[in-house]
Amino acid sequence: MTECIFCKIIQKEIPSYIVYEDEVVIAFLDISQVTPGHTLVLPKKHVPNIMEYDEELASEVFKRIPKIAKAITASNPAIKGVNILNNNGEVAFQSVFHSHIHIIPRYSEKDDFGLKWVEHSLSSDELQTIAQSIANQMEA
Amino acid sequence: MTECIFCKIIQKEIPSYIVYEDEVVIAFLDISQVTPGHTLVLPKKHVPNIMEYDEELASEVFKRIPKIAKAITASNPAIKGVNILNNNGEVAFQSVFHSHIHIIPRYSEKDDFGLKWVEHSLSSDELQTIAQSIANQMEA
Repeated sequence: MTECIFCKIIQKEIPSYIVYEDEVVIAFLDISQVTPGHTLVLPKKHVPNIMEYDEELASEVFKRIPKIAKAITASNPAIKGVNILNNNGEVAFQSVFHSHIHIIPRYSEKDDFGLKWVEHSLSSDELQTIAQSIANQMEA
Repeated sequence: MTECIFCKIIQKEIPSYIVYEDEVVIAFLDISQVTPGHTLVLPKKHVPNIMEYDEELASEVFKRIPKIAKAITASNPAIKGVNILNNNGEVAFQSVFHSHIHIIPRYSEKDDFGLKWVEHSLSSDELQTIAQSIANQMEA
């Protein structure tokens, strides 16, 4: 018996407000509704975070995102844009460890979703060092 | 001649700190470095936002995201998680209209990235109405 709340939603052991479902994904309203229409899209397969997706799962889940984002946008003429957000790790505000993608419709820049976004000017040397350290891992 | 700054980076008319590149995507450091290692992943094809991706482009771009997210995480032992963020529309804080995906490494919950996240308790009727209006668009 799973203890994962999202697996229970997928198995219909817990009710949810489903907007779309097929063999790979389910999309339902986030109960927190940061803005009206705030939707979660998740693979039916239980994977904790984006690091655990293989290429095929990432391909299958995300190829469905544009259509769902378009449907959300079309559902209400007051929606002017969407943020797509996927949190990985407790430090990144992930609270349910079944990977999920938030689609957050935006009504104005001052609605109830926003970002803390502090910019930093790093030196060329610092940027080059960081880029190289990531590039090295891509080849590892 | 393109006026798109990201197309100019792709064409190497403007230098950038590239962490990965292949025939479909380029990934380079966001010059704003909200946290160290903050990276942008974008399709080489000029598409303004997620609404304009077809299924194949979404599949091709996003199947590369797990590997890049893993490389970023592995590049620095202080990285404890990542936020993956894609902004669509001015109202959603999109500033360059060549679609791009932010991968923001997280060092602590109190680092220089954060969310404004105001939760709302809607009634069952309200939730059902919203879910149905989106589901209708999925079938449209």
